[in-house]
Amino acid sequence: MGKELVKVGLVGAGTIGKGVVDLYRRNINLINNRIDFELSLEKVADRDQSRLQALGLDEKKLTTEAADVLDDPQIEVVIELIGGIEPARSFIARALENGKHVVTANKDMMAHHGWDLISLAREKNLNIFYEASVGGGIPLIRPLKHNLVADRVRRVLGIVNGTTNYIFTRMDRDDLSLEDALSEAQRLGFAEADPTNDVEGLDAAYKLVIMANLVFGKKAVFDQVHIEGIKGVTYEDISYAREIGYTIKLLAIGEELPEGLALRVHPALVPLEHPLASVRNELNAVFIECEAAKELMFYGPGAGPMPTAAAILSDVVEAGRCIRFNIANGVVERELQDTGFVPVGALEARFYLRFLVEDRAGVFASLANAFADEGVSLDMIIQKRRVGDLAEVVLVTHQVKEEAFHRALNKVTDISAIQPNPSIIRLLN
Amino acid sequence: MGKELVKVGLVGAGTIGKGVVDLYRRNINLINNRIDFELSLEKVADRDQSRLQALGLDEKKLTTEAADVLDDPQIEVVIELIGGIEPARSFIARALENGKHVVTANKDMMAHHGWDLISLAREKNLNIFYEASVGGGIPLIRPLKHNLVADRVRRVLGIVNGTTNYIFTRMDRDDLSLEDALSEAQRLGFAEADPTNDVEGLDAAYKLVIMANLVFGKKAVFDQVHIEGIKGVTYEDISYAREIGYTIKLLAIGEELPEGLALRVHPALVPLEHPLASVRNELNAVFIECEAAKELMFYGPGAGPMPTAAAILSDVVEAGRCIRFNIANGVVERELQDTGFVPVGALEARFYLRFLVEDRAGVFASLANAFADEGVSLDMIIQKRRVGDLAEVVLVTHQVKEEAFHRALNKVTDISAIQPNPSIIRLLN
Repeated sequence: MGKELVKVGLVGAGTIGKGVVDLYRRNINLINNRIDFELSLEKVADRDQSRLQALGLDEKKLTTEAADVLDDPQIEVVIELIGGIEPARSFIARALENGKHVVTANKDMMAHHGWDLISLAREKNLNIFYEASVGGGIPLIRPLKHNLVADRVRRVLGIVNGTTNYIFTRMDRDDLSLEDALSEAQRLGFAEADPTNDVEGLDAAYKLVIMANLVFGKKAVFDQVHIEGIKGVTYEDISYAREIGYTIKLLAIGEELPEGLALRVHPALVPLEHPLASVRNELNAVFIECEAAKELMFYGPGAGPMPTAAAILSDVVEAGRCIRFNIANGVVERELQDTGFVPVGALEARFYLRFLVEDRAGVFASLANAFADEGVSLDMIIQKRRVGDLAEVVLVTHQVKEEAFHRALNKVTDISAIQPNPSIIRLLN
Repeated sequence: MGKELVKVGLVGAGTIGKGVVDLYRRNINLINNRIDFELSLEKVADRDQSRLQALGLDEKKLTTEAADVLDDPQIEVVIELIGGIEPARSFIARALENGKHVVTANKDMMAHHGWDLISLAREKNLNIFYEASVGGGIPLIRPLKHNLVADRVRRVLGIVNGTTNYIFTRMDRDDLSLEDALSEAQRLGFAEADPTNDVEGLDAAYKLVIMANLVFGKKAVFDQVHIEGIKGVTYEDISYAREIGYTIKLLAIGEELPEGLALRVHPALVPLEHPLASVRNELNAVFIECEAAKELMFYGPGAGPMPTAAAILSDVVEAGRCIRFNIANGVVERELQDTGFVPVGALEARFYLRFLVEDRAGVFASLANAFADEGVSLDMIIQKRRVGDLAEVVLVTHQVKEEAFHRALNKVTDISAIQPNPSIIRLLN
C-alpha cells in the first residue's frame, strides 16, 4: 500500500536553498522511512539559472519563475528562502491564498509581517512554519510553542547572532581587537562582506521580535526594540570583564512587565557561571526564564546551510503531517494581543563604565559626587592602568534606573578632566 | 460557540501528581486560551486518601480506585504518575486498550516496556507521550522526535541525573567529600533517603535507553547498558581534574556504531570549554551530536514538581490535539529495529588514573613498561603530592581500547609497590 504523497516546492536556491536540496537528496529515504507519508520535492524556482544548475536536480524540476511553484495546484507545501521583505511577503501570502502550507527561514520578513501572515494562514486553515528563522538549526520555535504551552515565560535572553558572538569570542580568547576579529570572521565565512545587520544588532532584533510574539502572545513591534550594536566594545572592556568574572555577549532580551513588553538588543556582561557564558564562537543559544520550568536553554548552530536545512525539512515534515491529518492550527499561534512597550530608560540595570581621566586631585571626588547626586551607588571601582598622561577608571554600579544613570553620566562627562566617549555596557542581572 | 472538551484523568497523586494538579489549577485558563479546545481534569485516583485530600479538588473528582479513571468511557487522556514498573505498565496498557491516549513520566517503566507500549498505542491509533520521563522540565522528547526528523544523530551525551550532578558540583565548588555532598543533597531534597538508583547510575541508564530508542530508532535494551556509578570518584579526583582543565560529570552516553549501539553511564572528565561543563547543581542537559545540525544542547531542570508538571501538561495538550484532529502517530515513533550492542571493552577512550605508589627506584619504570607492553601511551603524568609514605601519581592516557587499558592496568596493579584501588575515570572525547 503506497503512502500518501506530499508535494513540496522551493522558492530560492541560494546558500540555504542549496543546503535544503543537498540534505533532501542525502536523507529523503531516511525521512520517508520515519514518517507515515512521503515527501517529494517537485519544483525549485530561482531567477538565477546557474544557481538552479548547481542543485544537481532533474531539469524538469527547475524553473526561473516563482509562479510555477506558488500557483502549481499540485504543490501543497512551499518553502520560501529568498530572504528580505519583498517579494518574500507577497510570495508567502500568495502561497497561502492558493491553499498551501508555508515554511520559511526569513527572519526580517517574519519580524515585520509574521503576525499578519499567521492570521492569514489561520483564516485559511493553514500553517506557516518558521523554525529556521531564529537559531538556525536549534530546535526552538516548536519547543517554545508546544512545550511551554502550560508555562508562563518571564524573560527571554538570546545569543542569536553568530557573527557577533564569534567576534567577542575571538576578542576574549585571542586578545584581538574588534576590527581584527571581524576580518577573521569575514575570512572564515561567519560574517558577510557587509556585516552591518549583524554588527549593529538588527539581525538579533528581528529574531527577538519573532520570539517575543511567540512566548508572550503579544504583538511585538520591531520599531519598539532598543538596539545597540557591538561597535562600542573594545578589547580592554572584554579584558576588564574577564578580570571581574564576566564575559561580554550581544544579548537579545525580551521581558513582559506589567506596563508591557521591554525589548532590547545590546552587549552585556554575562557572569562566567551563567550558561550563556559558555556559548562560544559562532554558536547560538536562547535562555528562557519561566514560572514553572524555571530556566531552560537551547543551544546549537545559529546558522549554516546544513543545520538550517535540517530545521527547514523538519518544518516540511510537520506541514506534511498537517496535510495528512487535516490539522488546522490546534495549539497556538493564538491570536496575538496588542501591548504597550516599556522604553529602555524606564528599566533598571547595573552598568559597567570605563573612561580616561586626568590624574589630578579632586577629579575623583567630583566624579563620586555626580553619581551620588543621582542616587547611583557604585559596586566596584578599578583604577590601575595609565594611558599616556591619563588614568583609566572602571566603575560598576549597583542596580539603577537607566534614566538616573544617564543623568549622572552627563554630569560626569561635564567634568572637564574626564575624556569623552566612555565605554558603557550593562550587566546581565 | 463552545470549544470541544477533552476530559483528562490522573492516576497517582504523589509529589509529581500534586504538582500537576497545582499547575493545572493555576494555569488552566491560560492553557485553554492558548488552544483550540478545552482541557478538563475530571478525576484523580490514588490509593492514599490523605494525598487526594491534599489536592484541594472537588470531592467528586477523587477516587481511591485507578479503575475509575482507566475504565471511565468519558476520559480520553490518562496521566500515569504512580511510578515503578507494575502496576504502572498494566495501567497504561489498560488505558490504551480502552481507547485513551496516555501521558507518563515513568522512566524505568518506559526504559523496560516503552517500545511494547508504543507498539500497542500504534495498533490502536493512539499515542503515548513521555516528555517528562527524561530531563524533567526540559523540552527534549518532542524536539528529538520532531526537529531531528531530517537529521542523523551520531551520539547522545546526557547529564540526566540531578542528584549526582549536584554532588559533583558541591565537591568541585566547595571542596566537599562525596559523602558530605550527598548528605547535603539529601538535606535539600535533591537526593532521596535511599539514593541508590541515582548514585549507582541506574536512573541515568533508564533515561539513556529512552533517548536511544528515540534518536537511533533501535531497540535499546536496559541490560545492555554498561553502568558505573559515582562512588569511585573522590574529592582528589575532582581537584586534579580541575587542575588539568576538566570537570567531572556523570554522563549517559549513547552512540550508533557500525556494529550496533554502544550505551554506557559512567563518570567522565569533561573539558571545561565543553557546554556540558557549565551544567551545574541539580540541573540537567542533553548534548546531541548530529550530522546536519552538528551540536545541540537542551538544558534545564531535570526534576522537581513544577518543571515536571509543565512538561506533563504540555503532553496532555498534545494528546488533546491528537483527539481534536484525529491524529494517529504521523511522525515517528517509527517501528524500532532490532540491533546489536557494542560492549564497553571494544570501545576506545582516554583514561585518567590516580593511584598511590611506594616511592622507590624502579617503580616508575616497571609501571611505564606495563603500559608500553600493551601499547597504552601516556599523555600526562603528575606526581607532586605525598600521602604518608606513598607518592600519589596521576596519569592520563592517549586514546586506547578499553580492553588494552585494562590488561595494562592488571599488570600495573600486579607491581607490588602500587597500592590497590586506583581511581579510574574516562575522559570525554
